[in-house]
Amino acid sequence: MNALRFHGKGDLRYEKIPIPQVKAGQVKVKPAWVGICGTDLHEYLGGANLCPTTPHPITGETIPLTFGHEFSGTVEEVGQGVTNYNPGDRVVIQPIIYDDTCSACEEGLQNCCWQNGFIGLSGWGGGLADHIVVPQSTLYHLPPNVPLEIGALVEPLAVGWHAVKLSPFQRGASCLVLGGGPIGISTILALKAKGCDNILVSEPSPTRQAFARNFGAHHIIDPTTTDLVQRTRALTAGKGAHIVFDCAGVQAALNQAVHATRARGTIVNIAIWERPCSINTNDFNFKERTYMGVATYAVGDFKEVLDALADGRLRPADMITRRIGLAEVEEKGFKSLIHDKDNQVKILVEVGGGK
Amino acid sequence: MNALRFHGKGDLRYEKIPIPQVKAGQVKVKPAWVGICGTDLHEYLGGANLCPTTPHPITGETIPLTFGHEFSGTVEEVGQGVTNYNPGDRVVIQPIIYDDTCSACEEGLQNCCWQNGFIGLSGWGGGLADHIVVPQSTLYHLPPNVPLEIGALVEPLAVGWHAVKLSPFQRGASCLVLGGGPIGISTILALKAKGCDNILVSEPSPTRQAFARNFGAHHIIDPTTTDLVQRTRALTAGKGAHIVFDCAGVQAALNQAVHATRARGTIVNIAIWERPCSINTNDFNFKERTYMGVATYAVGDFKEVLDALADGRLRPADMITRRIGLAEVEEKGFKSLIHDKDNQVKILVEVGGGK
Repeated sequence: MNALRFHGKGDLRYEKIPIPQVKAGQVKVKPAWVGICGTDLHEYLGGANLCPTTPHPITGETIPLTFGHEFSGTVEEVGQGVTNYNPGDRVVIQPIIYDDTCSACEEGLQNCCWQNGFIGLSGWGGGLADHIVVPQSTLYHLPPNVPLEIGALVEPLAVGWHAVKLSPFQRGASCLVLGGGPIGISTILALKAKGCDNILVSEPSPTRQAFARNFGAHHIIDPTTTDLVQRTRALTAGKGAHIVFDCAGVQAALNQAVHATRARGTIVNIAIWERPCSINTNDFNFKERTYMGVATYAVGDFKEVLDALADGRLRPADMITRRIGLAEVEEKGFKSLIHDKDNQVKILVEVGGGK
Repeated sequence: MNALRFHGKGDLRYEKIPIPQVKAGQVKVKPAWVGICGTDLHEYLGGANLCPTTPHPITGETIPLTFGHEFSGTVEEVGQGVTNYNPGDRVVIQPIIYDDTCSACEEGLQNCCWQNGFIGLSGWGGGLADHIVVPQSTLYHLPPNVPLEIGALVEPLAVGWHAVKLSPFQRGASCLVLGGGPIGISTILALKAKGCDNILVSEPSPTRQAFARNFGAHHIIDPTTTDLVQRTRALTAGKGAHIVFDCAGVQAALNQAVHATRARGTIVNIAIWERPCSINTNDFNFKERTYMGVATYAVGDFKEVLDALADGRLRPADMITRRIGLAEVEEKGFKSLIHDKDNQVKILVEVGGGK
């Protein structure tokens, strides 16, 4: 079958590999639509980082590995003991790989697993191939009124959803989102779905500003021309944001955002930073601010996102800014996200395609 | 009257100043016992930092200022409109100075006041003088069975109490305290009072280790000879501490402590750091850890500490390691805390003295 495999920095190959075989408890899926993620891009540009170069403790695999962890698909075949899925079922895949005997998993925190990995980054195949075989526990049925294309957005939507769920958000809270890229937009959509009526977004790029506004941000702040702290306070009755969602991972932005956070406010970090961040602890102590790290998504998040897609609370269709073929991923996908990133939110790869 | 006043770095003077006069809503107190705080010492060694060199926005004062913000005393005289206090009443003083129109105070967070200051550091006199006049709102009655000496410990005890109260502590949680100095001990005492049955303390000094043990720590870890991460995990069923209280403010200690914190665990910073701290955000994200700053004490804390002293849940008497006179503060107080700090927890200055 065809697969798009990552061999190391700058080395992505469209190649033929064997079709995987279904075993007991597993399901064979034909990927339909696959999103390209910033993490894929980071691996391509500067990796291997997350992708294992020594055998992954759970999958036992190393690069080369098939990419693609944001995807929907159609069930092709089910292994022995699988009763919840049948050929033809439309599904999405929660790609977390975890070791359920670890001390975090024992407490139900598979997203914090000490051994964790991801389908499409750590082994077990990926969405960017004609077929994939996964444990049935990774699958969720797509609601009848949610198209397969939208199914490919569930994974990034779950990231923003989870961050908002773990944060102390409640109705009436003012939220500042740093960065209007895909995860910033996922966070804006989750905040809208949960009833936030004061979403501020700090984003310098005019095209990303427009995306943020279209997805429901109430106020856009260009931090290169406007004082983020003063503007945030002015938009929050002088108090500052209740919660800041850092979807940028940039020191200068965080430095300002701390002072744009009210007393007892929270900064939720979703971003993967490229280097350690520096914190003036006094700014946290004297105003009793909290800094919270969040990781991907946990039990319940995929189901909640699917429910919100089904009933229209989440309307992410405009996140899809381009559709390309499997053989075009490097040229029209990755390079577009490098050279034209401000105009792209989510590029979907059509593998099996379909509705 | 006699007062001990801070004039600037290394310049502490025992001198004569006028007796303050009582106005409406104020109470004149004769300080009894006054604790010397690490903050006083920092001002003396490297200040003025917190002490204002330009007029404080609320008190309007600058150095020289009377020191002493941890103290008990006896009411001498009350101003017009004061009905809750009478001459002879034994009291403690909550020294926070705040501007109740600020955006934090409006939400009841006087400890996060944007203009805040402290009696004994920012003006309005201090405990290290024969008399002080304070607003009645700063006073709390000392319970009949709590001696004036113990009253001088209420302020540092409230710091640990507040930190534990703001933290996600609940019974069954394992807590790691970094540093066995006065605030570390205050935190240990608060944890004991709230029923913590697994208190770990990381402290290199043998005398401070002994103090921590005497005040109820269950496990002492010397981080210079023992792997803090491995030892903490071993003492917490392999999972790590639920909560780390940083009472040290040392980068190397924090670096280890992060990894000694379980998934979804919390690091509560009580320490005043001398420089910015560095955080590997991935360590917070991948395990969904939280970093929380806390500030002094808030509404309710002084009363709760006084109640816990009255009913014996808090037993801090052994924190008092030396008693000195007002004229001896520099030689027998400050210099002792510099050269003999490991043997001292709390040095009390007898001003008016009494029981």
